Amino acid sequence: MMLDIHASGVYVIAATPFTDDGAVDSASVDRLIDFYLSHGVTGVTVLGIMGEAPKLTHAESVALTRQVVQRAKLPVVVGVSAPGFASMGALAKDVMDVGAGGVMIAPPATLKTDDQIVAYYANAVEAIGPDVPFVVQDYPYASGVVMTPSVIRRIVADNPSCKMVKHEEWPGLDKLTALKNLMADGSMRKVAILCGNGGIFLPHELERGADGANTGYAYPEMLVQLVRLTKSGERAAAHDLFDRHLPLLRYEQQPGMPGLAVRKYILKRRGAIASDAQRKPGVKLSKESIAEIEFLIARLERNH
Amino acid sequence: MMLDIHASGVYVIAATPFTDDGAVDSASVDRLIDFYLSHGVTGVTVLGIMGEAPKLTHAESVALTRQVVQRAKLPVVVGVSAPGFASMGALAKDVMDVGAGGVMIAPPATLKTDDQIVAYYANAVEAIGPDVPFVVQDYPYASGVVMTPSVIRRIVADNPSCKMVKHEEWPGLDKLTALKNLMADGSMRKVAILCGNGGIFLPHELERGADGANTGYAYPEMLVQLVRLTKSGERAAAHDLFDRHLPLLRYEQQPGMPGLAVRKYILKRRGAIASDAQRKPGVKLSKESIAEIEFLIARLERNH
Amino acid sequence: MMLDIHASGVYVIAATPFTDDGAVDSASVDRLIDFYLSHGVTGVTVLGIMGEAPKLTHAESVALTRQVVQRAKLPVVVGVSAPGFASMGALAKDVMDVGAGGVMIAPPATLKTDDQIVAYYANAVEAIGPDVPFVVQDYPYASGVVMTPSVIRRIVADNPSCKMVKHEEWPGLDKLTALKNLMADGSMRKVAILCGNGGIFLPHELERGADGANTGYAYPEMLVQLVRLTKSGERAAAHDLFDRHLPLLRYEQQPGMPGLAVRKYILKRRGAIASDAQRKPGVKLSKESIAEIEFLIARLERNH
Amino acid sequence: MMLDIHASGVYVIAATPFTDDGAVDSASVDRLIDFYLSHGVTGVTVLGIMGEAPKLTHAESVALTRQVVQRAKLPVVVGVSAPGFASMGALAKDVMDVGAGGVMIAPPATLKTDDQIVAYYANAVEAIGPDVPFVVQDYPYASGVVMTPSVIRRIVADNPSCKMVKHEEWPGLDKLTALKNLMADGSMRKVAILCGNGGIFLPHELERGADGANTGYAYPEMLVQLVRLTKSGERAAAHDLFDRHLPLLRYEQQPGMPGLAVRKYILKRRGAIASDAQRKPGVKLSKESIAEIEFLIARLERNH
Repeated sequence: MMLDIHASGVYVIAATPFTDDGAVDSASVDRLIDFYLSHGVTGVTVLGIMGEAPKLTHAESVALTRQVVQRAKLPVVVGVSAPGFASMGALAKDVMDVGAGGVMIAPPATLKTDDQIVAYYANAVEAIGPDVPFVVQDYPYASGVVMTPSVIRRIVADNPSCKMVKHEEWPGLDKLTALKNLMADGSMRKVAILCGNGGIFLPHELERGADGANTGYAYPEMLVQLVRLTKSGERAAAHDLFDRHLPLLRYEQQPGMPGLAVRKYILKRRGAIASDAQRKPGVKLSKESIAEIEFLIARLERNH
Repeated sequence: MMLDIHASGVYVIAATPFTDDGAVDSASVDRLIDFYLSHGVTGVTVLGIMGEAPKLTHAESVALTRQVVQRAKLPVVVGVSAPGFASMGALAKDVMDVGAGGVMIAPPATLKTDDQIVAYYANAVEAIGPDVPFVVQDYPYASGVVMTPSVIRRIVADNPSCKMVKHEEWPGLDKLTALKNLMADGSMRKVAILCGNGGIFLPHELERGADGANTGYAYPEMLVQLVRLTKSGERAAAHDLFDRHLPLLRYEQQPGMPGLAVRKYILKRRGAIASDAQRKPGVKLSKESIAEIEFLIARLERNH
Repeated sequence: MMLDIHASGVYVIAATPFTDDGAVDSASVDRLIDFYLSHGVTGVTVLGIMGEAPKLTHAESVALTRQVVQRAKLPVVVGVSAPGFASMGALAKDVMDVGAGGVMIAPPATLKTDDQIVAYYANAVEAIGPDVPFVVQDYPYASGVVMTPSVIRRIVADNPSCKMVKHEEWPGLDKLTALKNLMADGSMRKVAILCGNGGIFLPHELERGADGANTGYAYPEMLVQLVRLTKSGERAAAHDLFDRHLPLLRYEQQPGMPGLAVRKYILKRRGAIASDAQRKPGVKLSKESIAEIEFLIARLERNH
Repeated sequence: MMLDIHASGVYVIAATPFTDDGAVDSASVDRLIDFYLSHGVTGVTVLGIMGEAPKLTHAESVALTRQVVQRAKLPVVVGVSAPGFASMGALAKDVMDVGAGGVMIAPPATLKTDDQIVAYYANAVEAIGPDVPFVVQDYPYASGVVMTPSVIRRIVADNPSCKMVKHEEWPGLDKLTALKNLMADGSMRKVAILCGNGGIFLPHELERGADGANTGYAYPEMLVQLVRLTKSGERAAAHDLFDRHLPLLRYEQQPGMPGLAVRKYILKRRGAIASDAQRKPGVKLSKESIAEIEFLIARLERNH
């Protein structure tokens, strides 16, 4: 199923399950996708930062995508950010061939000017081909690249295959409003806007017009319900739900491998994957961290 | 009152109040300090990032410090980070002369190696003088400089006038534990560790041995009570309190001027300052942001 | 004498002479300015990166400017780059009051987008006042900020007090041509373009239309003659001259304090300053470096 | 032939020849290698920054390496720097299988502390295998990572398969001396040190004990002769030779794709490759640049 501009709901950022000795754990891939499906996600993003993408070979990346596509029967977006267009193009081609619905591209830290960013996406589209739907990942904290609404507008205008923006600038609420205003007044073609950044501002983002979430919190049912409650106007209930989860969500939102370690720990605890191992080089949770997570989970479940 | 290694409780990061036309608002300085005192802070840090330090002239910085020292009758720490040691040394001298208890120094982004960081603090101490108590501000998000526990240990060992670390690496809980362990096993001299980063991990930091908070959340009474509850072992009550504030605290923790705009808005709303103006160049809250803050405050107060 | 858009020739980047114990060496300031004058410079820039600006207090900066203005009787440009507009504005006011001809402003590394850069210069002009002539320092190697020709055009258009660009992007020859073309076709108001970057591409820059040099090579007579020869069309002679100096020029162009150490060593050797000391923290030349410089000077002088 | 610690002479950084429509030009690969061999290089480095490595697919990279190995009959070092260890390990395995003599690894910009750099190389060695000889590329201008002599010493000590350092910090002469001193006094195991950075300081580097050059100046015969003259103590002749080339060498040393465009232009002009095309995205020389290069070549050849 192809990604299009009507993407909405929860495109979950999928972890990549490994066995304790570092192999991709295929059984857990299916189990994890089933877990996500059972909680109502509407799409799956694999091989993002949280998917440990740089630790997978090309062949592993393609195989993982094939498996997720077959299991999920939902649009599957594949992170293909790479330092060079050759590997980006090769990966995009191969994952689309196995049924991916689109790819996600973040700008490299070497980009310094507005024009360089716009040119980069033009080159990327040439590398992946003009028919491959793609997501602009706007995550300055990780990329070091800040894109103004005007730059995003130019990327969207230049590239019809741009279907979605993954919004995760921080702070970014007014930028989100600016993008929605550009779409509302016709100065920017409509694309989907789904929000990442660990979901830490998700209720406000939805209220400002975001189409959904694009993050991987280990309780995806919260994300799904939050989107539903907000869209149906049940604002107080939405915030009540979100606030119950916020202590744990914030704990999981620690950037990089520590946050992933928390996420995988909870996914394993919930039965969604067999092992919380990260492929090397990874991070192990300290006993203090585990105790904190358990404490926060206990409080969360008590508050249900 | 001088800063020493026994600093604890809440060293509030003070905003700098301006009138709508950009002058330092002396009346509001007193009002703000009284507000902080009434809520039980144990120290005050002025001219940090949230104090709009680079927008004040040297003379204004010294005058502000004098006023805060006289009003607070608590240790006052003054941010003196500067691109050059001449202005750092001059400001340190003048603020100590008007009664400051110490200064805070963040490393500049140009530092690239462990040795450069250690040498920088040696040079800084030579610039401010060996008798001026100082705080190492460890805030990689803003400074771009990452200090390992080993580097902090070297700075502490080399410089007897180092009295405190402002801990605000993110993620940083295990680093905090590492520093506490270094102090516990005698490989690092005891210094105070107070935590910044908007307080977003404060309960966990206190539980891991931090001596207090060094942040400026606009409800300082929460920070004060949180420290008290944690120290007296009332963990559940501490987290209940924190969790009630977390939605607003998180909203205020947006880095840079947007976060400051939120903070000043609430301080004004609570009567602590007369105007929430930032000196130019500043940020104004959008109407959407104001509505979100009001919504979060209403929920917070309802939950009291 | 005020800086204007007709600046040309050699605006020498002046070193700041210190005594061995770190005081500003006023006698050497006069001697150095006389040295520059005797070699035909047309302007002087003080308190640039090579002027150790961050190591001088405000009062020292103003005093140095006053002395240089009185001695040089040429336009004196003063570096006022600062992390905050308060100190920038205060320094600009005070140096203009003692007769400076203009100020130079580099963008801070925190600027990420085209619009941020343009807004920064608008704010800076508000801080220094709209009547103070200023130079845009375009030195990405040091600032981390890349300005496209279009951004420079916007800064020039927005701010009538912008009189000059110090061009030192590397590689930057085609950018220089782009700026000249914008001025030629009327899409950008004429400003002076003088070139820095240690002079390492100076003959080509002059041939592409630069108005002169804005660097501090310790043989300023070479810079002066090079400009003259190029403007009079004696291209071969210009390159012959430049090439004789290039080995030493390249040695001096090492960025930061090491390059400054080379420059001061030669200035002292030539009698222009009494001591080559840098104010702390500085760099001392190794004995190997001194031997290399002496070797290169011997070869240069043999080739005269 | 395997890379070992006795590497010396000129390990030329090879360009990757493309046809005008962007295919790897195999005929030119042979021609280019023959050109290098005819000028006396002692080794070849492929797929460095100047080899446009990120634009080649894995399969192309392996095929290119195979061809170069078979043609050169010299040690061939292959750049394998990558954002993830999976692709680094896969490429290292495959290029060693086709006869490469070793690989070159630069640290990623995300590394911030001494310990992170050391750990990175440990992980890299685990990825490529402990038997694969490797080169540490120390090029802070491009990588953003500064390695102290102490960090390099740790990497060398921890990893017996580290055989060489590509030295290209700038300024870096005293660092080179520091490394040589560490080896001389026995605190660091001997490794080869070859110098890059476009060769801009090569005579001084050789005089300070560097074992050779590791750069790709389009007149490799100059590099070869310079090494020979310096080693035989003919210092004046060595500098005379170098100085004749310095204007063009400096012109070619412009970082990134512009410098590569100059290099490929000259290689084509000298008959070493059929086209100077860069694979997309690339840079085309302006007509002004071409005129400058021709002018500099004419002067160089006149001076022969």
